[in-house]
Parts: sequence; C-alpha cells; structure tokens
Amino acid sequence: MESPIVQAASRARAASRSVATLSTERKDALLLDLSARIERSRDAILEANARDIHAATIAGLPAPKLARLRLTPESVTQLGASLRSVAALPDPVGQVTRELVVQSGMIVRRVRTPLGVVCMIYEARPGVTIDAFALCFKAGNACILKGGKEARSSNESLASIARETLVAHSIDPAALTVISDITKPDLEELLQQDQFIDLVIPRGGVELIRYVARTSRIPTIQHYQGVNHAFVDASANPEMALKICATGKTSAPATCNALECVLVHRDIAPAFVPALIKAYLDAGVEVRADASARSYCDGLEGRVTSARDTDFGHEFLDLIIALRVVDSMDAAIAHIHQHGSHHTEAIITSDASNAAEFTQRVQASCVLVNASTRMNDGFQLGLGAEIGISTSKIHAYGPMGLEELTTTRFVVQGDGQTR
Amino acid sequence: MESPIVQAASRARAASRSVATLSTERKDALLLDLSARIERSRDAILEANARDIHAATIAGLPAPKLARLRLTPESVTQLGASLRSVAALPDPVGQVTRELVVQSGMIVRRVRTPLGVVCMIYEARPGVTIDAFALCFKAGNACILKGGKEARSSNESLASIARETLVAHSIDPAALTVISDITKPDLEELLQQDQFIDLVIPRGGVELIRYVARTSRIPTIQHYQGVNHAFVDASANPEMALKICATGKTSAPATCNALECVLVHRDIAPAFVPALIKAYLDAGVEVRADASARSYCDGLEGRVTSARDTDFGHEFLDLIIALRVVDSMDAAIAHIHQHGSHHTEAIITSDASNAAEFTQRVQASCVLVNASTRMNDGFQLGLGAEIGISTSKIHAYGPMGLEELTTTRFVVQGDGQTR
Repeated sequence: MESPIVQAASRARAASRSVATLSTERKDALLLDLSARIERSRDAILEANARDIHAATIAGLPAPKLARLRLTPESVTQLGASLRSVAALPDPVGQVTRELVVQSGMIVRRVRTPLGVVCMIYEARPGVTIDAFALCFKAGNACILKGGKEARSSNESLASIARETLVAHSIDPAALTVISDITKPDLEELLQQDQFIDLVIPRGGVELIRYVARTSRIPTIQHYQGVNHAFVDASANPEMALKICATGKTSAPATCNALECVLVHRDIAPAFVPALIKAYLDAGVEVRADASARSYCDGLEGRVTSARDTDFGHEFLDLIIALRVVDSMDAAIAHIHQHGSHHTEAIITSDASNAAEFTQRVQASCVLVNASTRMNDGFQLGLGAEIGISTSKIHAYGPMGLEELTTTRFVVQGDGQTR
Repeated sequence: MESPIVQAASRARAASRSVATLSTERKDALLLDLSARIERSRDAILEANARDIHAATIAGLPAPKLARLRLTPESVTQLGASLRSVAALPDPVGQVTRELVVQSGMIVRRVRTPLGVVCMIYEARPGVTIDAFALCFKAGNACILKGGKEARSSNESLASIARETLVAHSIDPAALTVISDITKPDLEELLQQDQFIDLVIPRGGVELIRYVARTSRIPTIQHYQGVNHAFVDASANPEMALKICATGKTSAPATCNALECVLVHRDIAPAFVPALIKAYLDAGVEVRADASARSYCDGLEGRVTSARDTDFGHEFLDLIIALRVVDSMDAAIAHIHQHGSHHTEAIITSDASNAAEFTQRVQASCVLVNASTRMNDGFQLGLGAEIGISTSKIHAYGPMGLEELTTTRFVVQGDGQTR
C-alpha cells in the first residue's frame, strides 16, 4: 500500500502528462475562468483568510508575517488580475528555440517542453498559491504547493476553487496539489520522489532552503538571500546615485532585491557620503558605516553606527544599511566577491569602461548599471511574471518566469539516418 | 587549517574568476598549444597509460573496462584533434541571448556567463580528462575532474601537460584540478563545497549517480542510463525500420544511446517481426520477445528467448534486445511512459500525424522520427562536442555541449531607474 505522499506525487505525475499536451487556448480559458471564479468567491476567500489571521494572531505570529498572510478585497482582485495577465503571456510550450539541418540531413529542433511536476515550498503567503499554480500550469506543468501552515484555510479555499475549475474544464484536478500541513517525515518522503517530481523550488528562510538542498534527491532551484550592493563610482552622477541608494533601501526593505550595502569610491566620498547619510537618517534608516565613511559624517557622527565586520555580507531585510568607502573599483569588486550572494549588484557610474568591467567581473544573477537593485524583478525585466528569483546558476539564474518553468528537448526528423 | 579538499575547491573558485574573463583568443591559443604539446608528448602519455593497463590487468579489470582505459597512438592523435575542434567552436561566453528595452527604458540583456567551477566524476577513461577540461575551459569554467582510479598514471600525465600549458600562458593552473584517487570521506567533503563548486556531473553507473545525487549539496546533472525504444508504426517503411532497429543495437551496444527495446505495431508485425528477428540473430543478438512477437517467429522459435517482465525497462548494454508487439501507438506510448528513462526514443513511421503525436507525448531528452537512437549525440545533433547526455530535465536535457556549461544572467543598462 503506497503512502498518501507517494500517491499524491504519482497522481501529479499522471496529471502532468495531460497538462503537458493541453493547447494554449484550453490553458488560457482555464486561467480566465479561474480569475472570474476567484473574484466571485471573494467573500468566502476572505472569510477563510480571517480564520487564519485569527489563529495566527492568537499564536503570536510576528507582524511582518501576519502582513504577508493577510488577504484584502484588493489583494483578491489583484489575484484575479494576475491570472488574466498570465493568460495573456505567450505560451512557451512547443516554442522552437533552435532549428538546424545537420550534415546527415536530419532536421534537429530544440523544443520547449514542460518540466513535468514542480514542487514549491514557501511561506504563509496565500497569494503565492494562485500565482505559482498559474505559472506552472501555463508552462504545462502539474504542481505540488506546500505553503506555510498558518495559511491553511486560505490555501484550502483557493485550492478548492482551482480544482473545481480544473474539473469544470475536464482537466485532471491532480494538476494542482496543495499541502497545508506536513510532518517532517512526510516532507522527507516527498523530497525523495524523484521518479514523480522533476523540480523543487524552496522559497523562504536560509534554514529551509539549506534543509531542502540537503534532504532532496530531486533537483532544487534555490532562491537564497540577496546581499545586494551598490557601488558608487568616482564618476557617478551624485543625484542619480543618491536616489538609487536611498530608494534601494527604503522602498521595500524586506524584499530580496533590497539594497543592503553601499560601497563609495573615495574620490567621490567627501561630497557624496554626507548627503547619503543625511538622506538615510531622514528616512529613518540606521547607517552602519566603516571608519572611513564615518570620517565624512559632517557633524552626524553621533547618529551613525560603527560597522562591525559582520555587518558586511549581512542581509538586514530592515531599515539598516551598511556603508563602506573603497579605494578603487577593484576593491569594490573584491568586496562583492567576498560578501555578495550572487543575487543583485549595481554600479552607478558615468564611465562606460568601468561599467563594462564591473558587469563582466561581478558574479550575480542580475548586474545593473545606473539602476536600482529593486529593478531585479520579473515584471521590471520584462518576463511578465515570476515565480521567484533564483540564485542557483543552474537552469535559471535570476527571476524565473514561464520559460524557466520549461526545459528544451531535441526533436529530430530524419529519413533513415543510422550510424 | 583547511583540509586539502577545501583548499583545492577554494583555489578552483579563485581560478574560475580569471578564466571567466579570458578572451576567446587566449582560450583558443591555449587549446591549440595544448593540442600540440599532447601530440609531442605522445610517448610519455602512452608509457603512463601502459603502467595503468599493466596494473589493471593484474587486478583483473574486465575486458570492456580495460578497453576504455587503453590509449593508443591513434587515440592520442584524436585527443589533439578534438582540442583543435573545441578551439574552432564559437565561444558561448558573452553571447547575448535576448535583448529588450523594457517599459522603464532600461536595456535588459541576457548574457551567457560561465557556471564557475564544474566538478565531473567519471570512469577510468583518460581521454575524457582532456575532452572535459577543453569544454569546461572554453566555456570559461574551472574544473575539478575525478576520473576512475585505474587511470591514475594516464590522468596525471595528461593533467601535468595541461597545467604546464596553463602556466606557459599565464593562466592560473588551478583552472584544472585532477583527482586520481579519493577516499569516501574526502569525496563526501568535496560534494559539500557548494560555496566553491557550482555543478557536479556524475557519469558512470547508476549506483555512482544515485550516490552523488543523494550526497551532494551542490546541484547535480545526472547522466543516467538509456532505456531506449524504437516504435515501428503500422505505416513504417520496412527497410528503413529494419536498418534503424538492427544498427541501433549492433553498432555500439554498450553506449547509452543504443537501442534496448523494439515495439512493433501489430498491423506490420506479421511481415516485419520475422525479418527483424532474423537480422538480429544473424548479427549475434539475443532476442527476448513477448508471446505475441514469438508467434511470428517463422520457424526461429527455438532461437528466440521468452521475454520476462524484467526484460522491459532494462538497459542491457550488450547484444541483447527486448521485443514486443503492441496493439496501437497508444500502447507503445504507454509502454515508454512506464519503462523509458527519458533518454532517447524513436518512431519509424510514414504517417506525419502519428509522428507529431509521438514526439509530443513521449517524454525524453531526444525524440527521433525515422532515425536511429544512436544519432542522439552532441556531434550528430550539431552541438560540435558534448560532455555527456543529460537525462535531468533541469538546466540541460540531452547532449550537453559548450552552451550547457554556461548559464545566462541579466545585465541591465539604466539611466537612474528606481522603484
């Protein structure tokens, strides 16, 4: 007798075979219908969410986690809108990415094909349940979604609407499996089902990601933290640099593309550092500066913290910024090699050759010249939507959109070639 | 004090940063010089190989393994030639795979970039040591190569020539680390160095691959076995089908793209099966046929084995073929879903709509119409060279060439964009 975990994974594999061959029209029709059904079910969804919020409040969930758990009438409307936008994206499945006639006369095509079954493990953010299903489904995959247990009622409400919609469209409802709560042994068993699951995407804390990478026998794409730097080169436009550094921290400090450390070239430091520190302090940002940066504090010394070594290479996810003055771009790059997390790195410069050298030498999923690290985002980079930002170099590096939820295979037309 | 394993991995990471930024000219110059040096050192290489062969013969290594271990004057010349052909391939690093101007005005480019440090674990095949280094290096990566311990002298001889060449070209010789022998605890430690190693490619037996996938914290691309099928459709051209099925087994029975099972549509079976069985028997191939296929044996019953269930889904890697008659293409696809290994699958048919349906529904890294499974090979598919055939769907699916040894990252040019 198979365990419920093995049964669920095996059903997802079977469903993935039929989802893989659905036409674009049928997939889009399902997504549009699901959008309408979610909007019609808004009250029931909000009621389920209220139960989760109630239980989480009693359990003492911290405020930022409560905020991510909460659905509002607007966020439900937004879910419907994002389903419509996924329906409007081009279908990657079947796209021919390369075609050539080889010497033997065979026509060799590389064709985008679904991954199969994608398993995502994430926090208590009910909106992700629908977004992740929509992207996996449009890319021709079945998915197994394990959201945070605090979102149990919300996720079950959303999942039951999605599965009803699948049934109404005569599509195997095992295309979506939502797991609200799971014991540790069951999770371990799930992560061993490499014959049924093709990819695991853990999103969340470093501990969770490390646990999954260690435990899983299935390929894993890791969405690690962003220890993101901005290097303000000697030739930087100071107004532009100020705006990029300030908003990089303040516009959404808890996101993975937020700025965590500013490196300032010493030639621009005397004028730039005081202005930057003032901007941060005015915005309520704690500044942790090295000795050299503090020497330019301009009467604000008492309001600036001395940076400790551990403040560099740290993801604060809060209104805290590390600040260092460096002697050269070389020193900035060496700092990033040592402390960066391969997520997002930026240079602000007016010197094209420095921009070219920085983008060539710095290792990160996204390297920006004269733009905020906050622009490393699937929508901002033109992918249309994203399921997260990968810091794995394998398969997907940077925001993962629809294409990254597919692979390519070779489809060959011959006329009797042998060897 | 760091262990030798950690030191080696850390030096490879440092070397990878400089290899990543080498110009195409410098990389190609190194490969051409290495080609010349290997040809000049042929006697020394053959002498080292003779020591390995001598030790392996005494140790009783089986004949097929001895054959893979042996170098000949011709195979050393071939090594030189393959280095020149890698030098002639286009450099993937820096290629812009997509470029668009997004709404905010940023220019967003996806740029091919090296993976970093690639670790390959493979059998006692000394030629692979040079081929793998050449491909990794051309793609801008450092590599750690752990070949079978029986090839110790050969690998050390080849590695020392390669490292001398690196030094002569002022390139960090840690771009190539060759490990001849390693204890199990050391291998485990190596597979934990995810801060220094970006990708592990195990090639070899299923046991090795499973061990690495289970043990490694580093992303792994798996080159599993090929349980490859050919489906002979009712409309197949019988001569073409006969040639594809016969040579698919006989031309190189121990390779991963060899044919292991033939599925014949019942409408063509009465004429085709006897001819196929005769061709196999004439070529010394043992035929393991199901009851239906045996009913068409045409007086050859005594020379045909009754297939057991375990003969289907089995990789024989030998002059043995499984044979089954199926009622329909649906049944053939169901057989492949159940028994295939996502490696290589072929259909022989004159019906374009059956070809389209088969290629759409069958899951494999390479699906061929009217061509031999043996054509699933980097050279035959136009990649120029390959480091192996991946059956992982993640990152690379099918033959892995130079491009598959890179990833893409986002390089963004802005003019002050923030959010």
